[in-house]
Formats: sequence, structure tokens, C-alpha cells
Amino acid sequence: MRIDIITVLPEMIERTLNCSIIGRAQERGLLELRLHQLRDYSTDKWKRVDDYPFGGEPGMVMQIEPIDRIITELKSEREYDDVIYTSPDGQKFDQPMANELSLLSNIIILCGHYKGIDYRIREHLITREISIGDYVLTGGELAAAVMTDAIARLIPGVLNDAGSALSDTFQDNLLAPPIYTRPAEYKGWRVPDVLLSGHEANIAKWRMEQALERTKRLRPDLLED
Amino acid sequence: MRIDIITVLPEMIERTLNCSIIGRAQERGLLELRLHQLRDYSTDKWKRVDDYPFGGEPGMVMQIEPIDRIITELKSEREYDDVIYTSPDGQKFDQPMANELSLLSNIIILCGHYKGIDYRIREHLITREISIGDYVLTGGELAAAVMTDAIARLIPGVLNDAGSALSDTFQDNLLAPPIYTRPAEYKGWRVPDVLLSGHEANIAKWRMEQALERTKRLRPDLLED
Repeated sequence: MRIDIITVLPEMIERTLNCSIIGRAQERGLLELRLHQLRDYSTDKWKRVDDYPFGGEPGMVMQIEPIDRIITELKSEREYDDVIYTSPDGQKFDQPMANELSLLSNIIILCGHYKGIDYRIREHLITREISIGDYVLTGGELAAAVMTDAIARLIPGVLNDAGSALSDTFQDNLLAPPIYTRPAEYKGWRVPDVLLSGHEANIAKWRMEQALERTKRLRPDLLED
Repeated sequence: MRIDIITVLPEMIERTLNCSIIGRAQERGLLELRLHQLRDYSTDKWKRVDDYPFGGEPGMVMQIEPIDRIITELKSEREYDDVIYTSPDGQKFDQPMANELSLLSNIIILCGHYKGIDYRIREHLITREISIGDYVLTGGELAAAVMTDAIARLIPGVLNDAGSALSDTFQDNLLAPPIYTRPAEYKGWRVPDVLLSGHEANIAKWRMEQALERTKRLRPDLLED
């Protein structure tokens, strides 16, 4: 899978995306990640890519021209399944969407910054608007990093242990059951006896009960679908 | 405001949190941000902070001891309003919560990694579990960065133009109206005439109509509350 990220702040997420599991996915050739500095596509001599909004409001707006230029160039090189814009009013990003996107071949993610982007970009160049949550960030960079991270770990071969992703919260619409590791007792706080019993069937039953109980208590909405 | 982030991968978000607006907030003394390498609090000679889960399942679990050690040390230095754990099954992070957290003085954010953390940490050391969305990440680092970013920009004085944050999506439960900048026409795509009219009252009316229409169409749930 290839992900092209367009941003005015590649340095904000470059290191992030080369760390840990996403870095390893790239080393193994399972993920090709390209960060593009949008300013390189400005024809302005100061490399500006934003301007004042029409109608007078606070904040700056990212212009259509440089964005059209880079998207057109990328599209001339390969076919893209989606050109995504990260926006708090987009479709809500969730685990099923991460699964779906992890099956695509090539996607572009455009990171908004400043007050936002010229609305014509959203009408004519973007195929999908996605929000990682109901909050406002200083820019789309962290949203792009979050999406890339959630997607990358689902690409087959990226996680060492496929079972590890399959038993995650959300993969079966249940919250994960409590987990524990050594020591079995710490400051008087003990690990539940069943987990120390070695009795596999009882452990499996306990885990399912705990997952259901936690989901009912904390996220009953997950059980309604 | 001071935010202490505990992580096994400080390098994943260090650069991110020194960039752009969050970086500026720190330079101005409005935000004090500390990244702590959890491994420094391990007594293991390999600096390990994780171990196999009891009951046998895939994945590794972060141990209680090093985490208890660093949280205890931090708490001995100052009072913390909250010790937050970023978890997909926590309380949903949203703009009202970002507003609320931006008013606190000192918070700790613990980033989970691997399969998760020993449940006793969540029962005894954590005061609040927060999720940035219904998806699974390789670790809590990006969730901590997202929360820090959303919170930091709300601290008075961080954004240059306070009006800019107040007119954001979600601050009044409405999606933002479309915004445009130059050129007024690009490839035949024109900016709405009203925005070029200079008629302030009409522009304000158009913006409110657009915000309402977009919210009704894309996020009717925001209008129900």
C-alpha cells in the first residue's frame, strides 16, 4: 500500500511515521509512505500557500492552486483509490473504516492547516472527508498520522502476531477484557485467580464475561449494532 | 499548564510537540510539556517494562512497577488534577472535554503500548481514561499528541487570534461554513458572489445558513443536544 501525505509541516509527523511499527512496515516494503511539502508546489516567490478569506473573517485559508498542482502531478503517476481530506466535519474514522482503507492500493491524504482549505478543493478534488474525532486540531497532520498508524498495523505482515490485532478492542465490537502481567501481587493488588489457574476453558469464559460486562457498562452502543 | 507524558517512545512525538503552535505555546511559557521515557524507571537490567500476560494470550503487557514508580515521583513534586490513560475504551475525547482539560494546571498522560497495560494500573493509578476515537493505534503516543494539540490551542494566548478558535467547528455545535480565498475563479469554479459583495450583513446571514445546512446534512446529531 502507498500513502501520500500533503502538508505544510512534514517535519511535524516525519519522525512519528518512521518510528515503531509504521517504520518497520516501510522497511519490510509493506507500506510506502511519502510526505510532500506543499510549499514546493507554490508559484509564489515566498512559497506561500495561504491567503486571506473572502468575506473577511479571522484566520488564513489554504489556496486551491498549489493543492491542485500536486494532486494532478501525483495522479499522473499512478491511480489513486481516494483523495482524503482530514476535517472535523468529515465521516467518522473508526476501526471498520481502517480495515477498509487498509485494503486500498494508493491513497492521498491532504492535511488542512490554518483556518482550513478553499472549499472548492473539497468540492472538486477531494473524494472523501474523514474526521478522527469531534475536536479541533492545529492542523490535519496529526489526523493523517493517526489514520496512517491505524491503517498500517492492519496490513497483513505488519504486526508480528496476527492474533494480536484480531483480539483488539473493536475488532469484534467488544471492549478487550482486562489483562495482567507479573508480579501476581503488587502492593496488595492481586491478579484474578482464574488467570493464574492454567485452566484454559475457565480463562476463556472469564475473558468473554469481562469483555461483555465492560462493553455493557462503558460502551453499550457497541452492542446495539 | 503543565502536561507530563509517560511513554516508551518519546522520540515518536517529541518533534511533533515542538512544532508549530504547540512549540510556540512552550516558547511563550504558556505550556510546559515533559516527555518521560518509561524505561528509565525500570529496575530490570535490560530496561524492560513489559512482560507476558497471565493466562496466555498474544502480545505483551506493560508492567505496573515502573509506571507506579514514575507516577509516584511526579506526584511527590506537584499536585496533578488528573492521571490520564489513553485507551480506545475510555471516555470519548471531544471539544467540550478539550475545553475542560485546558483549564487544568497539571496533568499526566500515560501512553499504553504493546497489547496494553496491567489492569491494576487502570484500577489504582489512573483517574481518567480517554479515547480519541473508535480505532486502535500502535500505541497511545499519537493519542497523547492529539489531546495535547487540541488542548494547547485553547490555552488563552496560544492562538494569535482568539476569534479564530471561537469560530471553529464544534465551539457552537455547528460545523463551520465554507471558506474561500483567492483566486475568485479557478478552472471555472467560482467563489459564491455574496462573499465578494462586501455586504457584511448578507455575508453573516449566508454563513449562518451554510453552517446550519451543513450541520443538518452531515451531522444532525450535533443539533439534537
